[in-house]
Amino acid sequence: MNFDYRFEAQNLDQSDPLARFRSEFVITEPDLIYLDGNSLGRLSLRSARRIQEVVDKEWGEGLVRSWSAGWWEAPARVGNKIGKLIGASEGEVLVTDSTSVDLFKLLMAALSYQQGRTVLISDDMNFPSDLYILQGCTKLMGDPYTLHLVPSTDGISMDLDRLENAIDSRTAVVSLSHVAFKSGYLYDIQRVIEMAHKAGALVVWDLCHSVGAVPVDLDGWGVDLAVGCTYKYLNGGPGSPAFLYVRKDLQDRLVSPIWGWFGQKTPFDFEVDYTPANGIQRFLGGSPPILSMMALEAALDLPLEAGMTAIRNKSEAMTAFAVRLLDQILTPLGFSLGSPASPERRGSHISICHPDAYPINRALIGEMKVIPDFRAPDNLRLGFAPLYTTFEEIWQGFDRIRKVVEEQRYLSYGSERAVVT
Amino acid sequence: MNFDYRFEAQNLDQSDPLARFRSEFVITEPDLIYLDGNSLGRLSLRSARRIQEVVDKEWGEGLVRSWSAGWWEAPARVGNKIGKLIGASEGEVLVTDSTSVDLFKLLMAALSYQQGRTVLISDDMNFPSDLYILQGCTKLMGDPYTLHLVPSTDGISMDLDRLENAIDSRTAVVSLSHVAFKSGYLYDIQRVIEMAHKAGALVVWDLCHSVGAVPVDLDGWGVDLAVGCTYKYLNGGPGSPAFLYVRKDLQDRLVSPIWGWFGQKTPFDFEVDYTPANGIQRFLGGSPPILSMMALEAALDLPLEAGMTAIRNKSEAMTAFAVRLLDQILTPLGFSLGSPASPERRGSHISICHPDAYPINRALIGEMKVIPDFRAPDNLRLGFAPLYTTFEEIWQGFDRIRKVVEEQRYLSYGSERAVVT
Repeated sequence: MNFDYRFEAQNLDQSDPLARFRSEFVITEPDLIYLDGNSLGRLSLRSARRIQEVVDKEWGEGLVRSWSAGWWEAPARVGNKIGKLIGASEGEVLVTDSTSVDLFKLLMAALSYQQGRTVLISDDMNFPSDLYILQGCTKLMGDPYTLHLVPSTDGISMDLDRLENAIDSRTAVVSLSHVAFKSGYLYDIQRVIEMAHKAGALVVWDLCHSVGAVPVDLDGWGVDLAVGCTYKYLNGGPGSPAFLYVRKDLQDRLVSPIWGWFGQKTPFDFEVDYTPANGIQRFLGGSPPILSMMALEAALDLPLEAGMTAIRNKSEAMTAFAVRLLDQILTPLGFSLGSPASPERRGSHISICHPDAYPINRALIGEMKVIPDFRAPDNLRLGFAPLYTTFEEIWQGFDRIRKVVEEQRYLSYGSERAVVT
Repeated sequence: MNFDYRFEAQNLDQSDPLARFRSEFVITEPDLIYLDGNSLGRLSLRSARRIQEVVDKEWGEGLVRSWSAGWWEAPARVGNKIGKLIGASEGEVLVTDSTSVDLFKLLMAALSYQQGRTVLISDDMNFPSDLYILQGCTKLMGDPYTLHLVPSTDGISMDLDRLENAIDSRTAVVSLSHVAFKSGYLYDIQRVIEMAHKAGALVVWDLCHSVGAVPVDLDGWGVDLAVGCTYKYLNGGPGSPAFLYVRKDLQDRLVSPIWGWFGQKTPFDFEVDYTPANGIQRFLGGSPPILSMMALEAALDLPLEAGMTAIRNKSEAMTAFAVRLLDQILTPLGFSLGSPASPERRGSHISICHPDAYPINRALIGEMKVIPDFRAPDNLRLGFAPLYTTFEEIWQGFDRIRKVVEEQRYLSYGSERAVVT
């Protein structure tokens, strides 16, 4: 039975139109089943080469001159490149700061703009980091601002009618993750935008778990604001800078709370008074991290070459295959699906739940050469990166999970939590 | 006459106790006179090697596992290393975000803490970026918050009595640069802290132009809060993350306005409600840029090995030598000193002023292999990095400036400003 799945996986790999992209990545341990690309994407050969060049030539040799030879424009240039993956026009995306800081900037700008509206809305599936930023903004705005979290269905999906009922004329901003970090639930952005706009609310989307994995059409969907990280499916590297999107017509109506020099209209006049730059530039703060920015820029060619439709097709096929493996191999061992059942309502990862998920995760990493992600309290999160994950790896991963549980290998692993983001 | 100065410079280099550090840096064009280490410090061999290792081994091979093998603790670990250069105890410094974002966080935290006090004080020599952040915070706090800029003496130095008169019981925060970005004026931090504390005000210091160049004793001087960048005298590389300092006893009384996941008490419990971590950790936001962080960590060993006293001794000798060269060689050509006359009131750079400073700067970069820094309206800023700048380079730099002006080579350079930070 397992052999049949392996055979099927090999066939799927052979007919995979994206198969050639795997060789674009550094893979030093072919036997390692890496199912955590949605925490940290693999290193591409292009990024490795580009970093070397930036370090040796641009920093080492070019020194400060490199700021005027491509670094200064990098936040906008790399932003435009990401824009092509998410349906944004030129001049609507910037790469700068972290997701947290970018979310803070856009939320504060939106709250100031939405005078008289004092309710922020999110859901209980949102990444805690986003919820903390939302709570911080609510606190900073002071009374009578409040944050309302719409409850999900079992932490797995959202009843959109329930969300719609929560949005009204007091709603300033709705802030949601396009793909939920734990369950992988994929929001219908267009539908949410329609409900929010009908009530006069703005929406800020967090695209961390969708950019590079799920087709996104920000302009087409009428999205107001968005942020996202670049170290997951975009393979920008550890802590690579985040991006922010502001729809063109909103740009000159919103002002960042952090008045940065890079966002000043004429930075090199060194004027004492701040005047925000026109357009998206005003959302820049201080100096962006150039090494990571350039690593990211090089890696972005890969999803652009692959195309988001092909990426999504493979991604859906992968999560569907994984759910079949779960049903057949792991359900009998006490696992259940912690993600939506329908592939079109999922991003590129699924969560599988087991009461001993934490020690199972430790055993998988410690002795089985499988790297999933543990997410409290009982989720083993499995991320599939369409550019390099193979179907056979998915089969291997499930087979090794089976082995760990069947052979009770996880029993010797304690419950003290390790630090893995 | 010029020959005598060159001879003197060579002698100074021969007896320079820090001479050996120059070979720690990548110097591909020995004929290039790089006087802009205070905009972007040179690449050290240690950083170049470390970046390679982080990319290949930690990202490429270790993948997400590296977060629990040294990355997660990096902001605090690298912060402690910087702490040794600035007189901070363990657990008082973090490396994270940009100077702008760090300054914003500390200012907002301090303003919220200083309830009832509504005046922010700075001076007109402060880096515009800092002034913009201060203006943004003033705006965000709303009426009746105001920012008062104490005027300097000719943009060059500060009359401390004038500053003292500006600080009173309405003053919430004083925010100043330890070393002024243009004139290089060096504040007597201890004296300012005394005046501010007498009036109940907190002080936030920007150490961008002093860290790694000037001895700093934050704990000893009773400093409240500080920020600084790491790409100047610390050689962290383009856009490397900034640091922030919060005095131990203030840490649990201040809360960052940006409630980041990395600053949450128990991030891996993924709790919905934010509780700030104890201590300095609460000032973290999102994922820090790891490549730059590690490049910085490796480079920090250099000033630690050299020692701040030796660095300061050489730095003072360099600015003193440069001022003598200015007097003798360039004053007859229309230059004047835009910096304090006394070496102990200067950081490690000086500004020399000339009505044609902008085209002179272009000509120096374009055809004379000298890289100074232009700062509007008429400043040629010359930064001396004690770890790698030689006295002979300083002499060479002045000799080439002389040549550009005497031969009127700058006349063919236009006045359109290039982008150099």
